[in-house]
Amino acid sequence: MTISQALRLRRSLLAERLPNRPVLLFSGRERARNYPGNSYPFRASSHFLYFAGWNHPGLTVLLEGGRAVLFYDFPESEDVVWHGSGLSEQELKARFAFDEIRPSSRLSEVQGATSLPLAEAAEQLEVMGRVPDLTEDRELAEAVVFLRLDHDACAQQQLRQAGRATVQAHRAGMAATRRGATEWQVRAAMDFELIQHGMPHSYQPIVTRDGQVLHNNAHENTLIDGDMILADFGAETLEGWAADVTRCWPVSGRFSQRQREIYQVVLKAQQEAIKAVKPWAEFRHIHLLAARVLTEGLIDLGLLVGKPDDLVERGAHALFFVHGLGHLLGLDVHDMEDLGDLAGYAEGRHRSPQFGLCYLRLDRTLKPGMAVTIEPGFYWIDRLLDDPEVLKPFADCVRPDVIQAYREVKGIRIEDDLLVTEQGHENLTPGLPTTLEEVERAVTGAVTASRS
Amino acid sequence: MTISQALRLRRSLLAERLPNRPVLLFSGRERARNYPGNSYPFRASSHFLYFAGWNHPGLTVLLEGGRAVLFYDFPESEDVVWHGSGLSEQELKARFAFDEIRPSSRLSEVQGATSLPLAEAAEQLEVMGRVPDLTEDRELAEAVVFLRLDHDACAQQQLRQAGRATVQAHRAGMAATRRGATEWQVRAAMDFELIQHGMPHSYQPIVTRDGQVLHNNAHENTLIDGDMILADFGAETLEGWAADVTRCWPVSGRFSQRQREIYQVVLKAQQEAIKAVKPWAEFRHIHLLAARVLTEGLIDLGLLVGKPDDLVERGAHALFFVHGLGHLLGLDVHDMEDLGDLAGYAEGRHRSPQFGLCYLRLDRTLKPGMAVTIEPGFYWIDRLLDDPEVLKPFADCVRPDVIQAYREVKGIRIEDDLLVTEQGHENLTPGLPTTLEEVERAVTGAVTASRS
Repeated sequence: MTISQALRLRRSLLAERLPNRPVLLFSGRERARNYPGNSYPFRASSHFLYFAGWNHPGLTVLLEGGRAVLFYDFPESEDVVWHGSGLSEQELKARFAFDEIRPSSRLSEVQGATSLPLAEAAEQLEVMGRVPDLTEDRELAEAVVFLRLDHDACAQQQLRQAGRATVQAHRAGMAATRRGATEWQVRAAMDFELIQHGMPHSYQPIVTRDGQVLHNNAHENTLIDGDMILADFGAETLEGWAADVTRCWPVSGRFSQRQREIYQVVLKAQQEAIKAVKPWAEFRHIHLLAARVLTEGLIDLGLLVGKPDDLVERGAHALFFVHGLGHLLGLDVHDMEDLGDLAGYAEGRHRSPQFGLCYLRLDRTLKPGMAVTIEPGFYWIDRLLDDPEVLKPFADCVRPDVIQAYREVKGIRIEDDLLVTEQGHENLTPGLPTTLEEVERAVTGAVTASRS
Repeated sequence: MTISQALRLRRSLLAERLPNRPVLLFSGRERARNYPGNSYPFRASSHFLYFAGWNHPGLTVLLEGGRAVLFYDFPESEDVVWHGSGLSEQELKARFAFDEIRPSSRLSEVQGATSLPLAEAAEQLEVMGRVPDLTEDRELAEAVVFLRLDHDACAQQQLRQAGRATVQAHRAGMAATRRGATEWQVRAAMDFELIQHGMPHSYQPIVTRDGQVLHNNAHENTLIDGDMILADFGAETLEGWAADVTRCWPVSGRFSQRQREIYQVVLKAQQEAIKAVKPWAEFRHIHLLAARVLTEGLIDLGLLVGKPDDLVERGAHALFFVHGLGHLLGLDVHDMEDLGDLAGYAEGRHRSPQFGLCYLRLDRTLKPGMAVTIEPGFYWIDRLLDDPEVLKPFADCVRPDVIQAYREVKGIRIEDDLLVTEQGHENLTPGLPTTLEEVERAVTGAVTASRS
């Protein structure tokens, strides 16, 4: 399926669900970095990309009855001198299946359109004369969520491509890791694999020896033996589709005993969760399954004491596994998170108030065509585990002395991307070193058998 | 000079020039990429960085009488779980010489402060209750321009560091160039050199075989013999200081005859212009000098006919050399361009209406401590040179048949960064292959003698 075929299909499906109202989607504007003339690399709104395809600033597309009208001003003479002539009308129509292209001055002729809110409301106000919101425009938002949850053949192909590039980047990072290198040097080796294919990151990467700081985008440390890299790093394809993968590997090429023990526990939780990914499974149940497997492992190691099911119900696992098991994946790394929980939570479902579970981003019945991440983890967060107040409700089931012995493990997360299929699932990021032995071999340079 | 010493110096100099009014500077907010939770890497406003030093979002600094008060909320418990504890009060005061740190709730106590406009006015309105403008806040803007024009020892050291990394990146790009590679692969090799040191780009790089498209950020072409790469690529240091360098090199390792001829003309213009960079020289005169040397070269090659001075006065050179010779360099690649021409143009001077000269970004008397780029170029822009209407006013002095023979040259620009010193100037980007022979050797891998 070509991109232009996919765009036509998406537009006609939208028209079926929303037959009586024109839809206007805005690509967004370039964002100033240090001053207005020096912008960040442009990335269009994902809703716009999904239906219009062209990653270009300042565009509006009108979707109505399956037709797509692009509002675009072809460059004038002076623009051509500085920016070149760009794509012609014929090229734009052929590549992105636009039915018509109109100058942006005609945008004001469109009446009664519905739209979706963007991050920068002021822009939409200026272009469309109103700021969409999820009350007034909820019907459109629901229709878009319905479509974007079910990845078509074109989207699936893009997700596989993002996955392949991401796998190469992680392999390059493992191979580039050595004592005395900085985290930035490992990241540079990973970035190289994306940049040579023109791919940006789908999110700001984490490449750190301090994986226990969950949103850690610093890479300033010099690596020493005993450190373990946690790399949460994903590519975005040229059409905008995301991958999101995490691996951990030892700087010395050899995990320590404590690291091995916890790595095995996290890996078992991930593998059991992956096995459970299939149509009609509840993602929330898979999250709780992973929590239980992790808890069993921590009981076996002596960090926790008690019955696994009781501990999970009380949220004891969340002292170590603070976040959710995963999230939707698509044109956004947390797909459609701009719409709040409209995409992540099925109608009538809401976030739990419990610590840990409240961070679960996805509570839906899995269906073929959905893409999700599976990413359990273990983190030694001193703000939690050194605080008697935090541990107090779990006094009967945590063993502070044993826990302290695992402080050196810091953070371990193992994350793959999965596509739900009729048969069960397809791993979108195959071939990544995953077992302790595979990871150690990838760091030391020994040949690694490919997994898939 | 350490960063904290430099910050104290800058604050006291500002207080001298603006003794009677408190100044509030805002660092800015993170910019959403595809959705609010997925932001671009943060870069603070340059005015904020210059006086406050800390590249962190959501900060405001109050400068008054040489003192600096930071408005900052230390992370709360849940933030610490996700982001770590960050820098302590002691660390912030030691590193950035803040005299006091107050919670942001106390910002409303500051009365009658002056400020500078940021790219996103809405943010400043929200934080400071008003949007600064260059009429009401002109006194502050002029004081800041006065200070930032004259780079102190700390700034100079940073500019040299940015230059060194940029030189390494260009060398890596030359070495990575080969037929069959893509432009993206060359860019990846250049990026690697910055990323391994944690440095971002100071602007979106140009790495292209189509250098005649002046603002060409695409890198999709596959390189073939006969192509020439134009790379306009600069590093930014961790403290935010920019480099901005352009070199051109042949994919085959050997320039064609036409490329050699034009390269020599552009290089001579650049070298003569560089020689003229010294205190009390007028940058506008150096621009016109470069234009004249270029014009002489094009007369020698037969593209133009006439007297060099006449042709430059009429703007005939601007058919090929459409832009200005250079610009200010500092924390911004076009330093302080957010203030319009307040920094680039001395008081009472204004842009020329003439095509070519109207793009000159700098018209000031050079003084020690100023940093500028010197970047003449030659571009075969079909929108200009294939248009009889454009050529008509120059019918007596252009030779269309000869011009057509140079179409293959596409675009050549040669750009260095210079610091004006008491003695003349210092090249901030020494050691770059520059002559035809040096460049060819750097591409083919032969050892290149270092220039400085």
